[in-house]
Amino acid sequence: MTLRKPLSTLFFCAALPLVFALLPAQSQAPSVPGYRDFTAEAKVEDQFLAVPNAKMAGEELKILTVEPHVAATPEDYKTALYVAEKFRAAGLETQIVPYRVLINYPKTEQVTAYAPDGKVLMSGPTPEHVEGDPAGENPRVVMPFNGSSGSGNVTGEVVYANYGRLEDFKELDTQHVDLHGKIVICRYGQNFRGVKVYLAEQRGAAGVLIYSDPQDDGYVKGDAWPIGPWRPEMGVQRGSVQYLFRYSGDPETPGVASTPDLPDSARVTPQNQPHIISIPLSYHDAAPILQALKGPSVPQDWQGGLPFRYHVGPGGVTVHLDSDQDYQRRLIWDVIGKIPGSQYPDDWVVTGNHRDAWVYGAVDPSSGTAAMLEAVHGVGVLLRSGWRPKRTIVFCSWDAEEYGLMGSTEWVEQNEQQLQRAVAYFNVDVAVSGPNFEASAVPSLKDFVRDVTKSVPSPLGSTVYEQWKNSHPPENEHDSPGMNVPNEARMGDLGSGSDYTAFLQHAGVPSTDIGSEGPYGVYHSAFDDFAWFKQNADPDFVYLQEMARVLGLETVRMADADVLPYDYVAYAQEIGAYLSTAKRKAADNGLGSLDFAPAQAAAARMLTAAAQAQAAQTAATGDLARLNTFLRQTETAFLSPEGLPKRPWYKHTVYAPGEYTGYAAVVIPGVNEAIDAHEAARAQQQLAVLAQAIDNAAQCLKKAQL
Amino acid sequence: MTLRKPLSTLFFCAALPLVFALLPAQSQAPSVPGYRDFTAEAKVEDQFLAVPNAKMAGEELKILTVEPHVAATPEDYKTALYVAEKFRAAGLETQIVPYRVLINYPKTEQVTAYAPDGKVLMSGPTPEHVEGDPAGENPRVVMPFNGSSGSGNVTGEVVYANYGRLEDFKELDTQHVDLHGKIVICRYGQNFRGVKVYLAEQRGAAGVLIYSDPQDDGYVKGDAWPIGPWRPEMGVQRGSVQYLFRYSGDPETPGVASTPDLPDSARVTPQNQPHIISIPLSYHDAAPILQALKGPSVPQDWQGGLPFRYHVGPGGVTVHLDSDQDYQRRLIWDVIGKIPGSQYPDDWVVTGNHRDAWVYGAVDPSSGTAAMLEAVHGVGVLLRSGWRPKRTIVFCSWDAEEYGLMGSTEWVEQNEQQLQRAVAYFNVDVAVSGPNFEASAVPSLKDFVRDVTKSVPSPLGSTVYEQWKNSHPPENEHDSPGMNVPNEARMGDLGSGSDYTAFLQHAGVPSTDIGSEGPYGVYHSAFDDFAWFKQNADPDFVYLQEMARVLGLETVRMADADVLPYDYVAYAQEIGAYLSTAKRKAADNGLGSLDFAPAQAAAARMLTAAAQAQAAQTAATGDLARLNTFLRQTETAFLSPEGLPKRPWYKHTVYAPGEYTGYAAVVIPGVNEAIDAHEAARAQQQLAVLAQAIDNAAQCLKKAQL
Repeated sequence: MTLRKPLSTLFFCAALPLVFALLPAQSQAPSVPGYRDFTAEAKVEDQFLAVPNAKMAGEELKILTVEPHVAATPEDYKTALYVAEKFRAAGLETQIVPYRVLINYPKTEQVTAYAPDGKVLMSGPTPEHVEGDPAGENPRVVMPFNGSSGSGNVTGEVVYANYGRLEDFKELDTQHVDLHGKIVICRYGQNFRGVKVYLAEQRGAAGVLIYSDPQDDGYVKGDAWPIGPWRPEMGVQRGSVQYLFRYSGDPETPGVASTPDLPDSARVTPQNQPHIISIPLSYHDAAPILQALKGPSVPQDWQGGLPFRYHVGPGGVTVHLDSDQDYQRRLIWDVIGKIPGSQYPDDWVVTGNHRDAWVYGAVDPSSGTAAMLEAVHGVGVLLRSGWRPKRTIVFCSWDAEEYGLMGSTEWVEQNEQQLQRAVAYFNVDVAVSGPNFEASAVPSLKDFVRDVTKSVPSPLGSTVYEQWKNSHPPENEHDSPGMNVPNEARMGDLGSGSDYTAFLQHAGVPSTDIGSEGPYGVYHSAFDDFAWFKQNADPDFVYLQEMARVLGLETVRMADADVLPYDYVAYAQEIGAYLSTAKRKAADNGLGSLDFAPAQAAAARMLTAAAQAQAAQTAATGDLARLNTFLRQTETAFLSPEGLPKRPWYKHTVYAPGEYTGYAAVVIPGVNEAIDAHEAARAQQQLAVLAQAIDNAAQCLKKAQL
Repeated sequence: MTLRKPLSTLFFCAALPLVFALLPAQSQAPSVPGYRDFTAEAKVEDQFLAVPNAKMAGEELKILTVEPHVAATPEDYKTALYVAEKFRAAGLETQIVPYRVLINYPKTEQVTAYAPDGKVLMSGPTPEHVEGDPAGENPRVVMPFNGSSGSGNVTGEVVYANYGRLEDFKELDTQHVDLHGKIVICRYGQNFRGVKVYLAEQRGAAGVLIYSDPQDDGYVKGDAWPIGPWRPEMGVQRGSVQYLFRYSGDPETPGVASTPDLPDSARVTPQNQPHIISIPLSYHDAAPILQALKGPSVPQDWQGGLPFRYHVGPGGVTVHLDSDQDYQRRLIWDVIGKIPGSQYPDDWVVTGNHRDAWVYGAVDPSSGTAAMLEAVHGVGVLLRSGWRPKRTIVFCSWDAEEYGLMGSTEWVEQNEQQLQRAVAYFNVDVAVSGPNFEASAVPSLKDFVRDVTKSVPSPLGSTVYEQWKNSHPPENEHDSPGMNVPNEARMGDLGSGSDYTAFLQHAGVPSTDIGSEGPYGVYHSAFDDFAWFKQNADPDFVYLQEMARVLGLETVRMADADVLPYDYVAYAQEIGAYLSTAKRKAADNGLGSLDFAPAQAAAARMLTAAAQAQAAQTAATGDLARLNTFLRQTETAFLSPEGLPKRPWYKHTVYAPGEYTGYAAVVIPGVNEAIDAHEAARAQQQLAVLAQAIDNAAQCLKKAQL
């Protein structure tokens, strides 16, 4: 592989002289990273790219979304059979792999709001309904509810908590608003919904209502469905409120695969679920509560898009919640399709997407499933032409992702040993909600994703890469260093909220996540259906085709590589930048005495070793199997055996979902979260853990070039 | 006077050596600018400051607001008699001065909105009404209307034009929306309402509806009246749509005083009024129109606070407007109270405030009138103690300001000759809507205002100046250089929208404008009443007292000064900065070949002369009458005899209301507006006019120190 970073981004000055000495001349670089000679593979890729078919993707999408298919239902099983049939038709060794996991279906969900005089202000939830789309009328549509909600029967005064972020609850603390026994109402957005419930529960709240405010997801943004793509008045966002920042997967089996035969005695009390009730609402149902609420006028940035002034509460309204959740250990079904590798059969390239949906799930996740099926279609054509991948390819259709990444987590836990040799996990969840390509990846795979997208045409002309690069999404103050590289397409970090979590953050498999996005106001509602998709996301299914090509090309190119095309120079640079940022934050937080030097020295050593490894990757001579093994082990080296403080299931020292964000990644999480909590001793200890992990990675990279 | 600017702000390097040579040592500076020895005046000021009384100001406010008092009505005349009585009681030589001006009262205002099937969507305007305040029920409340509206009867499709700014109409041009025969609906805010109508009329619109959007002035900002200070659902903003960027005052007599005996033959066809109909609406009445409107979804920053997505139109709704305006030449009444000066009787210090209100006008303008009456009260006590001002003081209570600054403009036009010796005009309009002091002034008086506020205590503790300085209003991208001086309280430029306009921009009298502000959502509505004021603006009338003290102290200190305390160093610096900014803008607009050098050289000469004059001001020896005369003439020197292009009534070359802003000042307007219009030849010619004006000012300053 060639060195694609401009040298000016090599910012560890101490390491620079050595790095310079080791860099190969550009002219010796092969044209595609990972390949000594790309000629033969280019033909394979061209053959592959010709197959994924827009019309067929559309037909697959239609079949997948014909009925609601919540995890563990007969309709969900039907989609497993359909995907398995498609896998088999393409020539994959296909299995339906069941797990038995604890999930809830709602038996009762009732919210009643009363004025002080006892008058009923609202009785809901109102069934999802919109003029012009009968999707909500199907009796199989599950009533709006939250996965992992508690059951019970509570009455309380109401307090409005804005987005339910840590800073919002701190603002309530400042205002001396006591949440004990209260019903917290907050709006969706800015963090994972489980975090909202977690923070409310910590403060003694009796229940949580989470609603979609039209300022964030509704008429303030644009025309509502069925005129435009935004959330209609009665649209509700379902979703899990699992505490997935503790661990993902089956609540009763952290670290253990919940196979159907796992005895009950091997199961534990869930530690990643709230005890209190949580119910999601449309703004149609939230408005009467918020409008009646008294108390102080809200801070200005708490004001939403409903047509009245918002107040913090309490006062003016009392809410009664009735929640009866039917928790059972239920069977779910992953579909796993393999193509054995010809040269490295034990080295897996895993590509996955979930299949279960809250309702029809046209965008989430069926667009991803249709894209994956067309990628499988393309690989099937290659197989029929006689091609065999060097490494084993594993396509996975996950179940029960919506409940907490269950299908993927249990499978990772079952295959943990084998996955130490998995060279990559390529995820897609929401493949298509619009035309804007986006991606997240570990630093070692960022350029790999960019390279792949340079080989795929965009429906807008030119390549996916060029369109992506020119799309310029706005930078965010919370962006970590490395997301916005000058003159490069923007790439995110991997936090959580989809199935790469167990792969990367528990098992240390280098991962990527891709999607093509647009205005998407029907997320987790009954209106995320085929009609919405066709009108708003991708009328001609050409973005499904695009995503099939990108996902398939990631898989094929990685499976056939001579040398694994990881970029550890970039990885070391990003870690160095994370450390610099954390050091500044520590100083700002009064923790200026923390000693960052050992971790920074380790990062500098890793950069040196990475540059040396890069030279070996480019030369691509000698024992490539050994080189590849150590390159792959470098990612595993970032795992700490004891895991993160208070959440040992998360083992990666560089990436984790934030305890208070849920979706968004926290980088070098042990260190950063200790600094955020102003805990100097813990921060210093976590710096030591991190330094050790970085040094382990540097050691692997050193071995890679011996 | 001392040099209060840090030397680092003297940015004309060419002029610096000379400036340095002429600066007096700080230790020789007198303690209050304008005074050789402030001891005696300090006692006068202390005596004055003890008089203005919060309780009495509250009583005066209550009397002034007991009835609606639109200009030229019997109730308006009653307030003139009340003010005249107060003036006389204080010992002022008092006259009620009438003018006969063309103004409209509404006979009919009718807006009817129809769906395509003929169904009536809205029939209004709905009378102003809110539960808990009977203010709107008084039959003397004039129906919501626009001063200077056209009459007629039109039906048309509707187009939404956001704020009706130039850039909004340009966006409609870009979208190829034809406005011929259309009814334009736009929201209040961002510019003067007359500009909205002007731009719509230029594009062929048949009528304009201007409404108050809750995002700008309503529940999005905070609780609506009578819970909080913001505009309620049926509150309407009345107001003039006069084209006051052409000229202010009586439409038929630009440049001439419309005295009652002025023959009709001396009157001209109005050139500062629209021909089309304009009607203001509450959001209650605007919502059904906007909600029915079809066409493209709006650009995101056009979305307002009503609970649906906004559309540009046309389509979905037709509006019928019926407007019958009773235009008559009507008598209005200024009240003028004089105190002859003992030393310089021909040199006037003019202090003014308008008295007419659209309805009760508690904040606008009666808070200003009450503050002025308490200032007069204080001056009256001084008079009874034997004090006489050095210069003549003139207190003025203007009429018909709301229709287009009529009372002040006609009086200025009548006294133009005498006003060449007027040393200052101190305006107050909205004296108090809340606790935040703000001020605008010509650069020569900015430090004067700051100094005065350092002598007045704030109800919040410390001085008005300290509170003002610490209030940190957000800077705006449209701020001109000089508004935000580091470590100084922020001061605005004088544009238009109140009675200083004719004084400064037509007659060249150095002016200031002051106010104390807060959330004020009842502007120009029936709800701007005593109850609103007491609940929201100033429950104990202590800000009325504060404003009486500041206004009175401006007047007394200026009237008694040995040397006029103008700061022409600051003025020259600001002009230099305006030129630099304009030069950059010219380059950005492709007019980089414009020659700014002559104007810049003139500004440098003015700075040198100003520094020399400042030395003379500080020394305060010799013929002070002569010194004062030339200091005063410096402001007059900025007038250009031919006036601004296309609007010759505006003669000031440095400040004017913007043609497309109306309220906000455009600095060096001839130059900047030519650059904005990409007219190089006009810009160059206006640069020459400006350079001549600046040189005239420099010549005056040179004479000042001989």
